[in-house]
Parts: sequence; structure tokens; C-alpha cells
Amino acid sequence: MPHVQPLAPCSFVAAQPVATTGCVRVTQAGAQCGSVDAVLATRYAGVRKLRLNYELLGPSDAPVVLVAGGISAHRHVTATEADPTAGWAQGLLDAGRALDPTQVRVLAFDYIGADGSIDAPIDTADQADAVALLLDALGIGTLAAYVGYSYGALVGLQLAVRHPQRLRKLVAVSGVHQPHPYAAAWRALQRKAVALGRLQCADEQGLSLARQFAMLSYRTQEEFGERFNAPPEIHNGQVRVAAEDYLEAAGAKFVARVSPTAWLRLSESIDLHRVDPAQVGVPVSVIAVEGDRLVPMSDAVALIEGLGGRGRLRVLRSPYGHDAFLKETDRIDALLASELFGSQRPSRT
Amino acid sequence: MPHVQPLAPCSFVAAQPVATTGCVRVTQAGAQCGSVDAVLATRYAGVRKLRLNYELLGPSDAPVVLVAGGISAHRHVTATEADPTAGWAQGLLDAGRALDPTQVRVLAFDYIGADGSIDAPIDTADQADAVALLLDALGIGTLAAYVGYSYGALVGLQLAVRHPQRLRKLVAVSGVHQPHPYAAAWRALQRKAVALGRLQCADEQGLSLARQFAMLSYRTQEEFGERFNAPPEIHNGQVRVAAEDYLEAAGAKFVARVSPTAWLRLSESIDLHRVDPAQVGVPVSVIAVEGDRLVPMSDAVALIEGLGGRGRLRVLRSPYGHDAFLKETDRIDALLASELFGSQRPSRT
Repeated sequence: MPHVQPLAPCSFVAAQPVATTGCVRVTQAGAQCGSVDAVLATRYAGVRKLRLNYELLGPSDAPVVLVAGGISAHRHVTATEADPTAGWAQGLLDAGRALDPTQVRVLAFDYIGADGSIDAPIDTADQADAVALLLDALGIGTLAAYVGYSYGALVGLQLAVRHPQRLRKLVAVSGVHQPHPYAAAWRALQRKAVALGRLQCADEQGLSLARQFAMLSYRTQEEFGERFNAPPEIHNGQVRVAAEDYLEAAGAKFVARVSPTAWLRLSESIDLHRVDPAQVGVPVSVIAVEGDRLVPMSDAVALIEGLGGRGRLRVLRSPYGHDAFLKETDRIDALLASELFGSQRPSRT
Repeated sequence: MPHVQPLAPCSFVAAQPVATTGCVRVTQAGAQCGSVDAVLATRYAGVRKLRLNYELLGPSDAPVVLVAGGISAHRHVTATEADPTAGWAQGLLDAGRALDPTQVRVLAFDYIGADGSIDAPIDTADQADAVALLLDALGIGTLAAYVGYSYGALVGLQLAVRHPQRLRKLVAVSGVHQPHPYAAAWRALQRKAVALGRLQCADEQGLSLARQFAMLSYRTQEEFGERFNAPPEIHNGQVRVAAEDYLEAAGAKFVARVSPTAWLRLSESIDLHRVDPAQVGVPVSVIAVEGDRLVPMSDAVALIEGLGGRGRLRVLRSPYGHDAFLKETDRIDALLASELFGSQRPSRT
């Protein structure tokens, strides 16, 4: 029999709150943001000193729900007094929503590596360990729920395997236990676009092209068919199709806020992700989108089968494909309300 | 009322056979290859002197079928005595096939611009006019049929609009009357990869990446799910997914035989393509593949609706998606036999 190395039950080391930087603690309904210095034994990047940045909104006595988004999401989920810019999950955190921050305490954080400080492979297990460290530092024993979209769902699944005592329930939207090989190939080519740009110090063009190519994977034929049906034009002797303005704008916007190293390593992280559904220790609601080009329905079904009695599958059809969680906020909210709270809101602790 | 310029019924000027270059005329079952010098009034590239290269196989008294493939296909459809290398449509031209060159006279040609000599937009109408010139020069009045795959189908539709007297029947496989906006965006990003490479004279890397992007559009999730399900590896500190070897090999093979200019201009040509199905003047069999990521079934249905009584739709489901015509040779052959000849082979003229 070959010797099988058991999974380390917990590879993290220590965490402590630090003086807040670049972010103002505010008292609005208990909202705060801050940073925690942590030492993390990562799977591929050695032992790292990391600063974990978070935002925490809502009444301090309300049940805590961690909300985590795609690889380019971050701790700023919704506008606050301290930072009135829109958050990435803005529509899902409005008043009256399942995740209304006047009723629920919402925690969000920046993924490790999102600042470009880790130029080595990053595993979703590392992210899950970082979440556990952050919860330690904030004195949060158990999350009422973890709601993860896309990459956030992968991290949530790892958390549910490695630290099942830290969450009572997981809602995994548009993310499953392992990447589909076609989606992995698609991301690998995006990374090659960045590498091609870097060859010649054209990092920004490479990252922009990668983002544009990613946009195609996030959306659907259906949406493009409706939005970009105009005939092509010829500019400076070259054919330009109707979607190019949109795609280039998306690329430029991305380049302005994301570092190539951060993006590369988080993109890789999706492809390194592997979770055995049988080891998931908490109830999971899997929300899958028919039309998602990255997460085929068959993989969501495979996850549910692996979860056995711990899994519930909810499906929606959307022309926004993988991006449905950002665009179909009404429908996602209705599913969240039902999956998180059933027919009633949680009472404060 | 605005003045509407009528479509020129025929924009080509003249063609004449030239001394054959780089290709040996052979007598094997009437096989020949050669070149024709032609002057073509193109839509966007002015009046051009062009050399049209062709191969013609099969008995000289058999009905002539023109076979045209994707933008990287060419005149060499099958191995001959003169050129025993495999052709791009090899499996479809074996003995006993619908296109058996001992029974049918098979004509194939190199697309204009395939040699990289036209660095300007190329319209599928230009290709159709080139076909008409080639038929003139070869003394072929009317094709028994034109069988076009992918780009070849687009050119066939243009031929059927502009020169309906030159073909009795069109079989259009995996190509329709206009590009889908999503597919056009996908190709536009491939062209941007070439542009990114060219920024710094890394033309080959750019074209290789473009080809790799294109491969994803030609194939399906289903195929990748089966072939590339191995976990990723880490090489030199970077994540490498299972499909990368395959994709890079496809890129390298492509770069070795295709010029970036030729590829760019033919890729653009797909996106410029627009045909009004109502103007198609001959019977058309449309063969569409469920799972084709470039030509959605809804567009094949729209073409059929536009063709009215002149169109017939045949559908196959294939894990090879857009590339089914290259991979599903048995099933394509069966469809061709039925669409070209019904229950009986054509008699020689």
C-alpha cells in the first residue's frame, strides 16, 4: 500500500488585529472596516505574513453572513458612510434584501493575493484558512452562513471541508468542487495573453485582452446576439465588430484596478481548486445557472450527488450566464432568502 | 428616396490559365492541379491581379463538385499521385464516399488572400467571384454541386446569390448567412492577440495564441471534459492545465503553415459576411451541428426560414462542435450522399 499523506486539518498559524490602514472605522449601524495581520502556511507559497482586509456591516448582534465574490471582487460589497462608492454586490445588499445589512451582519474580505503580493500558486484552501484566521481575529466563532459566488463558492467549499465548525450553512452560487477542463483551458489562454503582453512590457494590453476574453466566458451567445447585432465597420482598413467597443472598455476598466500578478495568481487558483464533495461538513445550497459557460450544469449535478443529503440544487436560466449573480439580483435574492432563512428572517443573537 | 446602388451582377473582369507553378499536372484518373491568373474587382481591396490555385480530381466526364473548407483549408483535399500528403478533407474523399474522386470530379481551390498577398478586407463575395472566374478558365459551366464547410459554406452562399447559374445545388455545412455576434467577438479577440504579438514583432506568439483561442471555439466542453480531465500541474512556479500541451501544439502547427496576414484577413472576412437568404438562387441543404459554438442552431433555422422552399435542414449532434465536418466523416458522408444524390449516384455526363 502506498503511504498516503493525511490532509493537514488546519495549516494556519496565527492572526492578530492590526492598526487599520487606508480605511476608516465607522459607527454607522456597527459598520467597520479594518485589517488583520496573519501568518499563513500556504500550500504552494510557503509561510507568509499577510494582511487580511475586511469590511463588516450591520448590527453587532445580528447573525454574521460572509459574502465572497469572484476573483476580482473585494471587501467592499456595498456603499457605506465611510466609502460611499458602490460595492460589487450592491444590489444584493439593499434594504429589504435577504442580505439587508440592517438585519444581517455582513462580512467581506479581500482575497489573499488580490494585492499582487503573492507571486506563487495560491490554493483555495489557503483562502479558506485565511477566512478562519480572520474569524478568529474578529471573535466570530461560527458564521450563520457563507454566501459565495464564483471563486467565492470555491473558497466556501474549502471552508466547509477544512473548517466546518466555522459555518452553519454554505450557499455556493456559480461555483463547484472542481473546474471544468474546458473552462480551465479558457483561463489558461487568458493567462497566456498576459504572458504575451509581458514578453514585451505590454502588461496592460495583455491583461486587457485577457479580461476581454474572460468577458466572453462570463456572458452568453444569447446576450451578445441581442446587444451586438450591428454589422461590422471598417476602421483604418481593419474590420471592427460591434462588440469590440464594449469589450475594450471592459478591458480598460479592469486594467485600471487590477494588477496582472494578482489576476494571474487568482486565475490559476480557480484551476488548482479541487474539493471532495464527500468531505464537505455542512449543508450546502448549490445555485447553478443554466447557460453558464464556465460551470456546466452537469458539474453542479455532480457536486449535489457527491454531497448526498447535505446538498440542495437550485437552478436559474439567465442570458447573463456566469455573471447572473451580478445581474439577476432580484432572482438571486429570492433564492438566497429561501435558502438562507426559509420562510422567516433570522433573529438577532 | 435615397438612390440605391444596385448590386453589380458580376464584379469580376477576366481570367486566363497560366503556366502551372509549384504543382505538377498529372494524369491519374484525370487529376490535375494548376493556376489561373485573374483580375478581380474586389469589394474593399480594389482591382487585383490574383493567381487562383486549384486541384481537380476524378474522371473528366464525371459531374463536377466543388469542395471548399474553413479559412485554413486549401486546394489539396486529398492525397494524389502528385502530392501524396493527406488533404484536409481526406476522409470524405475515400473510395466509396459520396465524394469518391473515382466517381465524381472534385474541384478545390486556395482562397484569395490565403497566401497573405491581400492586406485589406476581403469579402466572401470576392471569393465567390473568384470561383466564377476559375470555372470560366477551366471551362466548367455549371457545378453539379458546391459543398462548403464553415467559411466554404459562406462562400457557397455568396456564389448562389451572385452566380446562381454556376451551381445546381449548394450543401452548406456549419456556415450560414451571417456571423453570430458572439462568434464575431470571439474572432475579433483572436485578431487582437495577433495585434498584441505584432506590437513587438512577436507575430508567431500572437498567431499561436489566436489559434489556441480559435480551437476552443471549434470544439466543445463535452470533448474537453473527456480528454483533459487530469488535474493541473505546477511547472516553474506556474499552473499548467491539462489542455495546454494540446493547445500549444495546435498553435505551433498553425503558425508553421499560415501567414498572420492571410489569417487576419480571412478571419475578418467571416465577420464581413452578409447574405440575404431570399436572394439565394439555388436549392440549399443546410447541415448544422448541435453544439457548434460558432454557428448556433437558431441561425441555421433563420437561414432555412429565409430560404423558404429552397432550403432543407439536416442536423447532427457532435462533441466536435464546429469541427464536426473534419471529425465525423462517416456521418457527414452519409448526409452528403443523401443530400447530393438522394438514393442514386450521379451518372457521368
